Amino acid sequence: MRPYPERLDALARARGTLLCIGLDPDPARIEGTGVKAAESFLNGLLDKLDKAGARPAAFKPNLAYFEQYGSAGLALLERLLDRLRDEIVILDGKRGDIGRSSAAYARALFETWQADAATVSPWMGQDSVEPFLAHCPDRGVYLLLRTSNPGHEDIQRTVWENLAGKIKQWARPGTGAVVGATNPEHLARAVRLLKELPLLIPGVGAQGGTAAEVMRALGEASNAWLHRVNVSSAILYAPDPVEAARRFAEQLTPER
Amino acid sequence: MRPYPERLDALARARGTLLCIGLDPDPARIEGTGVKAAESFLNGLLDKLDKAGARPAAFKPNLAYFEQYGSAGLALLERLLDRLRDEIVILDGKRGDIGRSSAAYARALFETWQADAATVSPWMGQDSVEPFLAHCPDRGVYLLLRTSNPGHEDIQRTVWENLAGKIKQWARPGTGAVVGATNPEHLARAVRLLKELPLLIPGVGAQGGTAAEVMRALGEASNAWLHRVNVSSAILYAPDPVEAARRFAEQLTPER
Repeated sequence: MRPYPERLDALARARGTLLCIGLDPDPARIEGTGVKAAESFLNGLLDKLDKAGARPAAFKPNLAYFEQYGSAGLALLERLLDRLRDEIVILDGKRGDIGRSSAAYARALFETWQADAATVSPWMGQDSVEPFLAHCPDRGVYLLLRTSNPGHEDIQRTVWENLAGKIKQWARPGTGAVVGATNPEHLARAVRLLKELPLLIPGVGAQGGTAAEVMRALGEASNAWLHRVNVSSAILYAPDPVEAARRFAEQLTPER
Repeated sequence: MRPYPERLDALARARGTLLCIGLDPDPARIEGTGVKAAESFLNGLLDKLDKAGARPAAFKPNLAYFEQYGSAGLALLERLLDRLRDEIVILDGKRGDIGRSSAAYARALFETWQADAATVSPWMGQDSVEPFLAHCPDRGVYLLLRTSNPGHEDIQRTVWENLAGKIKQWARPGTGAVVGATNPEHLARAVRLLKELPLLIPGVGAQGGTAAEVMRALGEASNAWLHRVNVSSAILYAPDPVEAARRFAEQLTPER
């Protein structure tokens, strides 16, 4: 299998953008009820993007929104993954447990569901992330370094720069980090600290980060095409999702 | 609904033990293959426990071992939960995400799957755990304070005692913490710091902690019956699981 960073680079250049679309079906914001409504909603969005030739450089289903429907929601995820087989799919589950349990999560993500990459919580330390890293570089692993939510300060504040050093030690090709767009200074610092590691950058749109700030913060990146900037709600629930995806895709284009 | 701490207390006293049995079907250690083999294995164990009248004071399915089979594994989890409807079930998923995604996880755990309690990662801070805590005291929430694996030192070492203070601030009745049995001194310190909060204590058996050390560390607990000590592999894969469950149950009995 072609190493994950190479796939990241090639697809971003081909599509001309770093945009990653988050697939988070929120029952409160979609028409109809239950897992069928979620499926129509997601397929409708993909149909529109396909028709407009506006596929992004990655898709990021967040497992929370599938789990809420129970096993039927995970069966929906599996049908969605079949449809996205040729895309880069980052499964966002923020998993992490003692070694043998992390190994079971890694089997779920990379073998059962065949994800290209996954997000992983570093809270339990090296032996808890190792079973995921063992799948690099075929698969990508994004460790939660500095998240986009307000509460990141409660624990991450005191340790995130220290953790950046550990991530560099632990990393093998394909290992990356999640760094929120909500603090562009921290994002720029993460780019400097982590050098060529692929970043997954959430927090643009509904959470308050802007595409322009992210592109400025990525200014010092050795290869900006390795990074992905995620937008979920601001595309999914826009009056015209395709138009919103196009606008974000354009704003998230590095210089060649 | 009777508050979670009251249910914990009542069931432990009725069963005369703090034992929680972890339900972690490991494909490498069970006969046959696939989700059917896992189902036979788990039902076989429950049948034996029932026949011997040896049900513990809680069951803790770890979601990793169900997810590895994909949506079929989650459907198995749902059948298992139906069978355990009258027991205390702690769903061990170590979830945690930005607020609206944590809310979706909380719906999965407490509404779709009707868990009595869940384990939650505190890495993303207060707004990420709040949607789980909102279900207290009907449901229990165990925040990962000081885990039982070797890697806990990588990040938790510098912050876990500080986090204990935050957990006390955030807690409402039903909120507890996960504290590993692998360092009895830390466990005793957590008992002192967290006072009457229910603890979920993993790490006895395969991970090296012993029941006797745990019971000593719980010596200062205001009400030891609120706590649960989890044993997974050392019961599930014992030559005689019922005998192993009985032995642990006996060792994990506080004085009345």
